[in-house]
Amino acid sequence: MPSRVAKLLEKLRNNSVDALLVSKEANVSYLCGYPCRDSYLLVHPKKTIFITDFRYTEEARKNIPGVKVFQYDNLFKDTAALAKRLKIRRLGFEAKDLNFAEYSKIRSYLGHKTKLKDTFNIVETLRLTKDPQEINFIKQAIKITGQTFEFIQKFLKPGIKELEIAAEIEHFIRYQGAKMSAFNILIASGPNSSLPHALISSRKIKPGEPILIDIGVDINGYKSDLTRVFFLDKIPNTQRRIYGIVQEAQDKAIAAVKPGIAIADIDSIGRKYIEEQGFGRYFGHSLGHGIGLEVHEEPSISSKNKAQHLEEGMVFTIEPGIYLPGKFGIRLEDMVLVTKKGAQVLSGAVNKSI
Amino acid sequence: MPSRVAKLLEKLRNNSVDALLVSKEANVSYLCGYPCRDSYLLVHPKKTIFITDFRYTEEARKNIPGVKVFQYDNLFKDTAALAKRLKIRRLGFEAKDLNFAEYSKIRSYLGHKTKLKDTFNIVETLRLTKDPQEINFIKQAIKITGQTFEFIQKFLKPGIKELEIAAEIEHFIRYQGAKMSAFNILIASGPNSSLPHALISSRKIKPGEPILIDIGVDINGYKSDLTRVFFLDKIPNTQRRIYGIVQEAQDKAIAAVKPGIAIADIDSIGRKYIEEQGFGRYFGHSLGHGIGLEVHEEPSISSKNKAQHLEEGMVFTIEPGIYLPGKFGIRLEDMVLVTKKGAQVLSGAVNKSI
Repeated sequence: MPSRVAKLLEKLRNNSVDALLVSKEANVSYLCGYPCRDSYLLVHPKKTIFITDFRYTEEARKNIPGVKVFQYDNLFKDTAALAKRLKIRRLGFEAKDLNFAEYSKIRSYLGHKTKLKDTFNIVETLRLTKDPQEINFIKQAIKITGQTFEFIQKFLKPGIKELEIAAEIEHFIRYQGAKMSAFNILIASGPNSSLPHALISSRKIKPGEPILIDIGVDINGYKSDLTRVFFLDKIPNTQRRIYGIVQEAQDKAIAAVKPGIAIADIDSIGRKYIEEQGFGRYFGHSLGHGIGLEVHEEPSISSKNKAQHLEEGMVFTIEPGIYLPGKFGIRLEDMVLVTKKGAQVLSGAVNKSI
Repeated sequence: MPSRVAKLLEKLRNNSVDALLVSKEANVSYLCGYPCRDSYLLVHPKKTIFITDFRYTEEARKNIPGVKVFQYDNLFKDTAALAKRLKIRRLGFEAKDLNFAEYSKIRSYLGHKTKLKDTFNIVETLRLTKDPQEINFIKQAIKITGQTFEFIQKFLKPGIKELEIAAEIEHFIRYQGAKMSAFNILIASGPNSSLPHALISSRKIKPGEPILIDIGVDINGYKSDLTRVFFLDKIPNTQRRIYGIVQEAQDKAIAAVKPGIAIADIDSIGRKYIEEQGFGRYFGHSLGHGIGLEVHEEPSISSKNKAQHLEEGMVFTIEPGIYLPGKFGIRLEDMVLVTKKGAQVLSGAVNKSI
């Protein structure tokens, strides 16, 4: 998308490079405006070149008119040759994406007239705020996720296995037209729910247990990521109480969202409430994460993120949790968009009452 | 697994390093004997240290008795400190796995007494041949995949969408107890089948069309990867003919498998037959790939692989294909184990007759 590439070119000047080799899949997809695989973008003020293999040349020519599509035989050798032809003196690369072997290869092919410079988060910074088209894809992904939560409730009965719940979810998601889950479905029932990163198992669900379901779908490369907790039959008092605390913590954090606020403060507001209720030590992860072309992307909604402030157009999760080891865990995860006025809860229509 | 670590230590001597930082997930899993995530292994003659975060320490202590489990706060800083404490002078790292930013971090923490050396494929070389336990997991994965092909045939009828077939497959696989697909399910019907890497779509299936299904499952980290082609109703003559050629090419390649033969020759034997039938230019990929903890691993069954020879215990796919652009494509993919006597077709029970 020419406007995104233009913004990137402005950034390159501040990073003291003449051109950038974009290798990270989500970054290439962002700049091209469609989900790309196994492809690279060489962005230079004179020319943008899409570098790919025979599988994707046709698709690229159709999707990104105006961009030169180059089909490589030897990726790094050919890329170095393109850089030399453009007389690039300082070529940036994405240090968190190229592995050391790849770096060494391109380094050796470039020779000594071109300096290879490690760069960090240049395209990621552009991706921090979402435009209306991106928000639209995210909303579509959230809609299907919400429908999935409604659908799955009729399967939740004593004796069903976590794996079987996952089977029904995958099945439903595909029939809604989503090509894939955004990440491995997480189903954690009973004591399994006390592990924030439990692996799905063959465990059978029993009455009175919480069933934590954390899922997302992918629409045109854009992800959703939501968590709900369901109960079979009566909800034990402790669990209802913890659920209420988590929900209140989430509400408080959401209420604090507005452009200009320090991101660390959003985490602190949710965390402080859980601490005041006496469960601070059972909330061991950060409050949320940016989401878009990646399930986890910038900004990190963490107390460690002292530098960044919220901006209009950011989209992220707010997902406080309380995990009581060996007993159970409750996490509620919603997705919000920062608007002029505050938080728009994109997943607001997905039921949370128990 | 102590025996695997012992073999690795022997290899390290040949690679002029005192110790190796294993970062690649499949390599860590191989050495530990169970599927590890987000964990590292520092292998040194005096001590093997499993480096991970709070999520996985308990699991690791249970699964790898005798190995020291170290819980890190700052991964690369702490790893460098461990290396210093062990007085490692030449520390190897996996150059195809660590990204440049990670490399730079550990480099800066190590200081100048420890040399950091890029290494390639050391653990991968150990993984080239499979032991009985590994073969057992692979066989389990293949068994479920075969059952899936049998199951799915009753859903193949005019009007069903590719995405819906995928939905039924995912659903069935999970109910068989497999925790996940080994890779994104590939369903390509009609003209879509002419693209070796077609993306799944909402396309509805029509009578007389081939439906190419390429799937695999994951059992304890070990993968299967099989392709079958199905037809609705009568099979057009051209398609039957091409199917026969692909099957014959596959049979010839399988018949040639035995310890000691150059791997490039296996590719050539399958390829040559397709060329003789006049379709050489429509078979654009290599004949197969090793498979185990990764869907694609060494050895590559390719005409470019002139250095390697088959060894007893290697497991790989044999998957010739003919892709007629805009018309249709046929690929048949089976998995074989190299035994003393030749090829054991691990997927031999999965029906291929049309």
